Amino acid sequence: MKRPKLQIALDHNTLASALADVKKIGEIVDVIEVGTILCLQEGSKPIECMRKMFPEKTIVADTKCADAGETVAGNVAQAGADFMTVICCASLATMQAAQKKVKALQVELYGEWTMEQAKKWREIGISQVVYHQSRDALLAGEVWGEKDLKLVQQLIDLGFQVSVTGGLSISTLALFQGMPIFHFIVGRGLTACADPIIQAQAFQNEIKRLWGE
Amino acid sequence: MKRPKLQIALDHNTLASALADVKKIGEIVDVIEVGTILCLQEGSKPIECMRKMFPEKTIVADTKCADAGETVAGNVAQAGADFMTVICCASLATMQAAQKKVKALQVELYGEWTMEQAKKWREIGISQVVYHQSRDALLAGEVWGEKDLKLVQQLIDLGFQVSVTGGLSISTLALFQGMPIFHFIVGRGLTACADPIIQAQAFQNEIKRLWGE
Repeated sequence: MKRPKLQIALDHNTLASALADVKKIGEIVDVIEVGTILCLQEGSKPIECMRKMFPEKTIVADTKCADAGETVAGNVAQAGADFMTVICCASLATMQAAQKKVKALQVELYGEWTMEQAKKWREIGISQVVYHQSRDALLAGEVWGEKDLKLVQQLIDLGFQVSVTGGLSISTLALFQGMPIFHFIVGRGLTACADPIIQAQAFQNEIKRLWGE
Repeated sequence: MKRPKLQIALDHNTLASALADVKKIGEIVDVIEVGTILCLQEGSKPIECMRKMFPEKTIVADTKCADAGETVAGNVAQAGADFMTVICCASLATMQAAQKKVKALQVELYGEWTMEQAKKWREIGISQVVYHQSRDALLAGEVWGEKDLKLVQQLIDLGFQVSVTGGLSISTLALFQGMPIFHFIVGRGLTACADPIIQAQAFQNEIKRLWGE
């Protein structure tokens, strides 16, 4: 089984603060995501910075695109993003338009979505989804559980590369052992701790322990 | 019946091109929206520019927020936005978090949403929705019809201030006559024509003709 990759979500309010964190751990993680908050605050500039600073890394633009797929995808690809996110309630037309312009689309699973919809995404050639514990849901006290793991497995069975995110810690990674998770996406779990470098290494070590080198 | 307001959607790829258009018709329209494409390209700067340039106008940040509601809403409010959009598949927790920070939230109706969900938005105090013909749906050949008008009326009956957008032209405004539409949101219908000033005036004149001074 392929080892899951570690993705940092840069959900900062300013480019400057994102740069301070990514300077420390950008080389340790596998994938760098310019988070929605940062996209909305700083525009395409953070994507351009990440592309230039980390030419070998996969860059994700977390636009959560809901419309104007081709324009948004063309813009983030031009800035240097490999992958881009679309929101699950976007129309198939939007997803198809966006797909033309980026290496891969990731459908972000928020709120009310169904496996029937997921099948349609597969039919139009979408290969990636992001399974979420919403930040606001986490704040409201929800946690990872059997229900989540079952849905993740069902998405894997449909043929998706499934990334997971939302309140992940080193101790929660073992919940997913034996599943071919695509990316573990972590934000403050990496950056809001005393030593982000040690924390990022510890995440990678735990992934290697659970999935092998 | 209150006269609907005319909202320009600045869906430009660059701040410079948005400024060129809003300089012409910003004073003619009632509401200025910094569109999603522009937010993602230029960050919060266009919101700041609109606030300073048009201190008397209502400014909308079309973030289509799906998560981290409080942070995103706080950021756009700080930049000068009055209203902010959230996507209809965002959780109620996200909407409630965002509501704390802006004067009003607008729920953007895309894809699969239900009147049951809409009732829940009303219950948490949301007063505005945006009914959409998606740009990508329009490109795929869909048009305004009875089905749309019926849904708009149902939303009005639930107590929402309903704005409508997507492929609106001067000749389509009459479709909505007799309905208390909140904002008519127009992008290229205003800017992608020979004379945007004459076009914006013609939209306002038609609104006045249909709804009264």
